[in-house]
Amino acid sequence: MSELRQDLVTERWVIIAPERARRPAENNCQPSKEDEANCPFCAGAEKTTPPEIWVARKSGGPNQPGWKVRVVANKFPALRVEGMLDREGDGIYDRMNGIGAHEVIVETPDHKTELQDQTLEGIGTVLTACKERMLDLMRDDRLRYILMFKNVGPQAGASLSHPHSQIIATPITPSRVKRKLEGSREYFRRKERCVFHDILRQEQRDGRRVVYENGGFLCFCPFASRFPFELCILPKRQAADYHSITTEEIAQLADTLKVTLKKLTLALNRPQYNLILHTAPVRRARRRDYWDTLDQDFRWHLEVLPRLAEPAGFEWGTGFHINPTPPEDSAQYLRELTL
Amino acid sequence: MSELRQDLVTERWVIIAPERARRPAENNCQPSKEDEANCPFCAGAEKTTPPEIWVARKSGGPNQPGWKVRVVANKFPALRVEGMLDREGDGIYDRMNGIGAHEVIVETPDHKTELQDQTLEGIGTVLTACKERMLDLMRDDRLRYILMFKNVGPQAGASLSHPHSQIIATPITPSRVKRKLEGSREYFRRKERCVFHDILRQEQRDGRRVVYENGGFLCFCPFASRFPFELCILPKRQAADYHSITTEEIAQLADTLKVTLKKLTLALNRPQYNLILHTAPVRRARRRDYWDTLDQDFRWHLEVLPRLAEPAGFEWGTGFHINPTPPEDSAQYLRELTL
Repeated sequence: MSELRQDLVTERWVIIAPERARRPAENNCQPSKEDEANCPFCAGAEKTTPPEIWVARKSGGPNQPGWKVRVVANKFPALRVEGMLDREGDGIYDRMNGIGAHEVIVETPDHKTELQDQTLEGIGTVLTACKERMLDLMRDDRLRYILMFKNVGPQAGASLSHPHSQIIATPITPSRVKRKLEGSREYFRRKERCVFHDILRQEQRDGRRVVYENGGFLCFCPFASRFPFELCILPKRQAADYHSITTEEIAQLADTLKVTLKKLTLALNRPQYNLILHTAPVRRARRRDYWDTLDQDFRWHLEVLPRLAEPAGFEWGTGFHINPTPPEDSAQYLRELTL
Repeated sequence: MSELRQDLVTERWVIIAPERARRPAENNCQPSKEDEANCPFCAGAEKTTPPEIWVARKSGGPNQPGWKVRVVANKFPALRVEGMLDREGDGIYDRMNGIGAHEVIVETPDHKTELQDQTLEGIGTVLTACKERMLDLMRDDRLRYILMFKNVGPQAGASLSHPHSQIIATPITPSRVKRKLEGSREYFRRKERCVFHDILRQEQRDGRRVVYENGGFLCFCPFASRFPFELCILPKRQAADYHSITTEEIAQLADTLKVTLKKLTLALNRPQYNLILHTAPVRRARRRDYWDTLDQDFRWHLEVLPRLAEPAGFEWGTGFHINPTPPEDSAQYLRELTL
């Protein structure tokens, strides 16, 4: 069983997960060409993963080929659903059991079809899988936050190359999430406008950092980008929770992802990257909650962080990032790129 | 000129530094064997760097061979000393000029002598260089924080393999530093004891996470380690500012670094790592300062972060880290390793 431990000074939590050490390793420099033969996520290998939790299928029975998108428990989970939190002290420190959930969204049965190469309908099914899993996990009273993310490439943390995303649900609201929520609340308190609304308007008016726009979403390189070619995808409709996304918005988001990830892939020659979904923490209707004002303060959004350079001592020491490429340059390059 | 930009939601600053894009690049997979021939930090290549700002020499004149440790301005600086901050708005956002300092401490004239392979006196001279540069930079009223760090290996952010450390001084106190200071202050307010004093006592009493101890310092793997084999080196004497380090403490810290970095190198087969010095921000005697209580709240310390695995989407999204190796295991391994 993994363990959650809190740093006494910064209040940051870490997950100590010895089971993760047994994950299949990829060589950082030369991703194996043979891993397709033994891939547990390909069609036909359904028995090598835990049973499916959610599935979209064309044909076949449970845990058999014929599926389009498949969600399974992570075989090397950072957190597990079974057990009690048992929050307790250890000397002056705090710890609790590693309770939570860790799932894998296998985006396609085909090893080589990247997310942006799927049809709009295919991308939409992945986005729906994520919504459905969140709605289900929210029912577990122990869980406070549900993060969807996607690691592409070994240096971005992917241990398997088959296209997949992950969901981790945690029993506490993570510090980085809290900071975004508190920043958003403080902005609303001062201005009586949502900070994400103001950012959307500013980026549309300015235009220099815009990469792509459709009826539902704006994709731009953030003003204070930490990384070259960093992207933010922001919905135009005010909503704190990703799980409130409509069918129309799923189609619009699929279009935005297809265009912008294709552009990124072309511009940077198949970069390694992380995609992160920022959504509001799980709130309970029956209790007055610290996050009661989020529906007006905060808006869910996606971040894409290309991993062209690794954070170094300065970034670890300060939280400051040094970015050699102005976001205006990244955005112009991507905007003008013809697919 | 580089630019500092603030994120509107999280208040995190970034440095947009186009000049850094021209740094010499190393191939991540196969560090060049030939870079020794063209190394700007080796003895004899003094004219290829900016002139020395600080030096310890055996012989020779300024910017000539005969030096032991040499500090020069970074040729590709993230921040520059010249100019005014010109803090201003850009639409709804905030920016200022990239004012600050960015220096390189060349630790040895010999390309192949890593820090831990130097004599105790040699390591002590590097530690003294850092103290002297901090005392000098503190006199610049525009600077609020001075960070010393060391990147070892290309994946840890080093663009040159010659042993060196860096100093970056920033015109604002970085968010990650503030968080440590505020956590320390809050702990003192509740307990009337310094949190670092309590950690030192707890680690000595428990013993399971201790790697090495001498008269002046304790080296241990932190309870909530983010990375396998993460180390913290904590002075036994209460002091918020690294620049208050005594001659005796410099000798003791040199001993601690020599032993623990040698152990780490042996255990992990020359790992890439970041070393970070956490010290108090620059305080001004003449003005009442927000950080007035730091002398009792906070204690300077060193962090060593081996880069065995890269942070992935989950870490970027939450600030949570997943660490597969319990710090008790890392510490036992290092403690029992014979040099």
